[in-house]
Amino acid sequence: MSSCALCELSSQDILWQDDFCRIVLLNDADYPAYCRVELLAHIKEMTDLPPAERSRTMKVVFAVEAAMRETIQPDKINLASLGNKTPHMHWHVIPRFEGDKHFPNSHWGEPTRDSEVPPLTKAVRDQLQRVVAERVECALEG
Amino acid sequence: MSSCALCELSSQDILWQDDFCRIVLLNDADYPAYCRVELLAHIKEMTDLPPAERSRTMKVVFAVEAAMRETIQPDKINLASLGNKTPHMHWHVIPRFEGDKHFPNSHWGEPTRDSEVPPLTKAVRDQLQRVVAERVECALEG
Repeated sequence: MSSCALCELSSQDILWQDDFCRIVLLNDADYPAYCRVELLAHIKEMTDLPPAERSRTMKVVFAVEAAMRETIQPDKINLASLGNKTPHMHWHVIPRFEGDKHFPNSHWGEPTRDSEVPPLTKAVRDQLQRVVAERVECALEG
Repeated sequence: MSSCALCELSSQDILWQDDFCRIVLLNDADYPAYCRVELLAHIKEMTDLPPAERSRTMKVVFAVEAAMRETIQPDKINLASLGNKTPHMHWHVIPRFEGDKHFPNSHWGEPTRDSEVPPLTKAVRDQLQRVVAERVECALEG
């Protein structure tokens, strides 16, 4: 698995993790609160997981969505699992704003403007991390 | 809600439906087995749904994924819920092939070639519909 970027340890801004997955803040310049939920195991497709682990994965994804909505009030949330280049299960959780670089297109699509989304302040980044942890732990207990 | 394309009744190639959602074969020329799971209710975000309905939605999405893998063996499955233009909950379930128009990019991204994916024959379309129904009904009973 040495050729898989998500199997290799790298310096990442990890908001939360357990022995199943980690939540990474990508620090994307155009999408400052863009997070990825990455499984630790090298799993290609959601249906390669047993149903209980599919459910666990999505509870974490939806907890990140909920934390973003609480913390930065995006105009829309985009969720996606593609993995064409890196077939190691990870979910993109992308807060979208009407003034972002591609809205209303996919952020993989055509840009429509220069980004008008301000960077995350340290206070908001730390608040996001705190709320993510609260929401994930609550979801996984439920 | 008359301005929402997914609230309006339209002619669609529906593979399966119940009183919660429908599974639509988009008959996309470049992605012949591309399906969408559309909720009947005008719901914007997954976290606007109660947890049991989030789970129900994802069971249907994963059942479609499983049926595609069984029927046409894609090289990768792409799953996405964006809704920037149509904020009515729907999931894209996109079977990807190494010879498709955008692989390994997002199908919202840059094309890399003319599509080499053949159209669905009627027999395969009908098989997909049959397997989708079996997989969804099994998942929802579980």
